[in-house]
Amino acid sequence: MGVKDDTNDLMVLHCDTAATTAAVFTQSRFAGPSIHVSRQHLDASPTARAVAIISKNANVATGETGDANAKEITELIATAIGADSTDIVIGSTGVIGVQYPMDNIRSHLTQLQLPFTERSAEPAAAAIMTTDTHPKIAAATAESATVVGIAKGVGMIEPDMATMIAVIATDAEISPDNLNQIFRRVVNYTFNALSVDTDTSTSDMAVVLASGQAGPVDETQLEAALSEVCLNLTRQLAADGEGAETLVVVNVTSARDEQQARQVAKAIVNSPLVKTAIHGRDPNWGRVAMAIGKINDADIDQNNVTIKFGNQEVYPNPATPAALNELETYLASDEVHITADLDIADGSFTAYGCDLTAGYVRINADYTT
Amino acid sequence: MGVKDDTNDLMVLHCDTAATTAAVFTQSRFAGPSIHVSRQHLDASPTARAVAIISKNANVATGETGDANAKEITELIATAIGADSTDIVIGSTGVIGVQYPMDNIRSHLTQLQLPFTERSAEPAAAAIMTTDTHPKIAAATAESATVVGIAKGVGMIEPDMATMIAVIATDAEISPDNLNQIFRRVVNYTFNALSVDTDTSTSDMAVVLASGQAGPVDETQLEAALSEVCLNLTRQLAADGEGAETLVVVNVTSARDEQQARQVAKAIVNSPLVKTAIHGRDPNWGRVAMAIGKINDADIDQNNVTIKFGNQEVYPNPATPAALNELETYLASDEVHITADLDIADGSFTAYGCDLTAGYVRINADYTT
Repeated sequence: MGVKDDTNDLMVLHCDTAATTAAVFTQSRFAGPSIHVSRQHLDASPTARAVAIISKNANVATGETGDANAKEITELIATAIGADSTDIVIGSTGVIGVQYPMDNIRSHLTQLQLPFTERSAEPAAAAIMTTDTHPKIAAATAESATVVGIAKGVGMIEPDMATMIAVIATDAEISPDNLNQIFRRVVNYTFNALSVDTDTSTSDMAVVLASGQAGPVDETQLEAALSEVCLNLTRQLAADGEGAETLVVVNVTSARDEQQARQVAKAIVNSPLVKTAIHGRDPNWGRVAMAIGKINDADIDQNNVTIKFGNQEVYPNPATPAALNELETYLASDEVHITADLDIADGSFTAYGCDLTAGYVRINADYTT
Repeated sequence: MGVKDDTNDLMVLHCDTAATTAAVFTQSRFAGPSIHVSRQHLDASPTARAVAIISKNANVATGETGDANAKEITELIATAIGADSTDIVIGSTGVIGVQYPMDNIRSHLTQLQLPFTERSAEPAAAAIMTTDTHPKIAAATAESATVVGIAKGVGMIEPDMATMIAVIATDAEISPDNLNQIFRRVVNYTFNALSVDTDTSTSDMAVVLASGQAGPVDETQLEAALSEVCLNLTRQLAADGEGAETLVVVNVTSARDEQQARQVAKAIVNSPLVKTAIHGRDPNWGRVAMAIGKINDADIDQNNVTIKFGNQEVYPNPATPAALNELETYLASDEVHITADLDIADGSFTAYGCDLTAGYVRINADYTT
C-alpha cells in the first residue's frame, strides 16, 4: 500500500500461525523506535505473526512521538490479524528525523483484512525499496521446506551485527534457539560481509520467520538453504549499491584467522581508492596494497603477500603488458574478484561491495531531507 | 628539478649545519623504502642535513631494487653536500609499485652543487605536489625564531601516526627530545586530525628540522608556532582534498575524553553520506546522527546529543524552515562547521575533512597506473 506517496511503502507479511523468529539488529547508538520495539517484542517471546516494514521514512531521532507511533502501528496490525502486538515485528527505512504520516497509516491499517491479497514476494520486495533500483528476492529449498527472502538497501551499508533490511520466511519447523544460532552464523558470512559505503544504518534489521508448516527438516540442509538465500540477497545488494556498476568480491586467504581476514577484506572492499580504480578499469594493485597496509598488524609482511585480480597475479610478480590489457577488460565486467593471500595461516573471509561512481555522489548529494 | 617529466618532482632541502630533527611516519604495513631508510637514519642520530622528497613515484612495493635505489639517492645527496648519508631524510609520494627513473635521478644528483639556487619555499612546495592543485606553505614566528612548513597531499589521507608529506624547518635551538615531544603533540591535533578519504598512504611522513641558528627560544612559544604552521597546512590539505569544494571542520564537544571525541569526529568527517550531503548543500543532520550512531559506545545517548551546522542547532530542537533556508546558503560556503555535543564530560576534538564530489571519483578513476 502507499502511505507516503503513490508507491508501495508499507509492507505487512502475515503468518497464519505463530512463527519461530530470529533477528539481528543494528548496533547504532541512534537506532530508531522500530528497532527498540522489535527487540522488545522478540525478547518477550521468540515468535511472530507478522512483520511490517515502512519505507521512505526511518522514524529515527523522532522522540517520544516516534516511539508512540511505532507502538501504535504494531497494535493496529495486531488488531487487524487477531494477534497480540508483541507478535508483530516492525522495521523502517528512509529519511531520518521525520515523523510518520500517521493519519494516512491509520486509515490504511484499519482497513487491513485477512487474507491479504498479495501472496507473491515481488510486491513485498518492491514495497520496502528506497533508492534500490529493483526488488531483491531469493529462494532455496531444504528437503520439504522452502526458504524465501526479500531485502532492500543500497547505501548507508556497513553492517554491524545486522545490515539493511531483510525478511526471510520458511515453512521449516525449528526451535527458536537453533534458528537463532543458525541465523547468526549465516548473517556473519552474508549480510555482515557486505559494505557499500562504510556507513551504518540506524534501521538495519534482518529477520527470519519459520512457520513450521513443512515439518522438521535436516538442520544442516536448512542452514545451507538459508545461507544460499542470504548470500544471494547479499550479492544483489552489493551489485545494486548506490551508483554502483560493478559487484566487487574480495577474498582474503591464508590469514592468521577469520577475524584478520575479515579486517583486511573490509579494508580493501571499503577503500574509496580501490573502488574508484575498479570504476576506472585500472588494475592499480598499489591501492590494494595500500588498503592491506592500513591494517597495522605486525603479522602482515608485504614480502609474503600475493595480490590477484580475477586469476591474474599482479603482486609480487608483475603482470605482463598483455595481461594488464586483459585485466582492463576484466575490470569492466559486472563482477570483479580481488584476492589477497597473506601467507600466514589458514584464515579466510570473503567481503562483498561495489565500485564508487559519480552516480553515488549524485544520488546522495540530491537525496534531500 | 624534473626527473620524471618536465615538472619539478625532486626537492632537496639543505641545512648548512646539522639540524635537530623529529619525524613521524606512516604505520602502513606496505610502507616503502623511503620510510624505512629515513627511520633508520633518524634512529642512528636525531639530526639531519637534508630532506629529499621525490613526487609522482612512491617507490613502494618495489622490492630489493627499490630499497637499493632509496639508499643510493641518500648517498648521492650526502656526497653533493659533504655529509654522511645517515644525515639525509628521504620521502616519496605518487604511484605505488613502479621503480624510480634512476638514470635521470643520478644525472641530476651528481650535478647538485651548494649553495642551492632556490631559497624560497614556493618551488619546494610545488616540487612535492602530486594531484594537489596548489603548493601549501605556512609560516609563524616564536621570539627570534621562524617556523616555515610545506606540505602535500589531497587523497589517500587518513593519517595513522603521520599523514601525507610535510617538511617543517625552523632556526630555533632545541634538544632532540623536546623537539620530538612537542612535534608528536602538535601532529596529534593537526595532521592526524585530517581525513580526506579514510585511505592511509604508504608514504606518509612529517618531519621537522631545527637548525638552532636563531638560538634557544621559549618552548611554549615554539610549540604554539609549530602548531600554527601545522594547523594552517592541515586546513590547506583538507580544503584541497581531491575534488573537494568545501573544507569541513567537525567539533565534538562534551565527550567522555579526547579519544571518544576523536572517534566520533572521525566518524562524522569520514562518512560518505555526510560528505555528499554537504556537497548537496543539504542540512541533513540525520546523516550526522547516523555517523555518531556508528560509534557503538554505550555512553552515547541519542537523547542527550546536540547537533549544529555552524551556530544553528538542528537536533534535538529542529530548525525552522527559515533557518533551514539559511543553512542551505551556509553549506554552500568554502568552510562548513559541524558540532556534535555528547553531553557526557569535557573531552573534545576537532577533525578536518572535505566534501565528496564527482571530482573525487573522476580524479581517482582516471589516475592510472
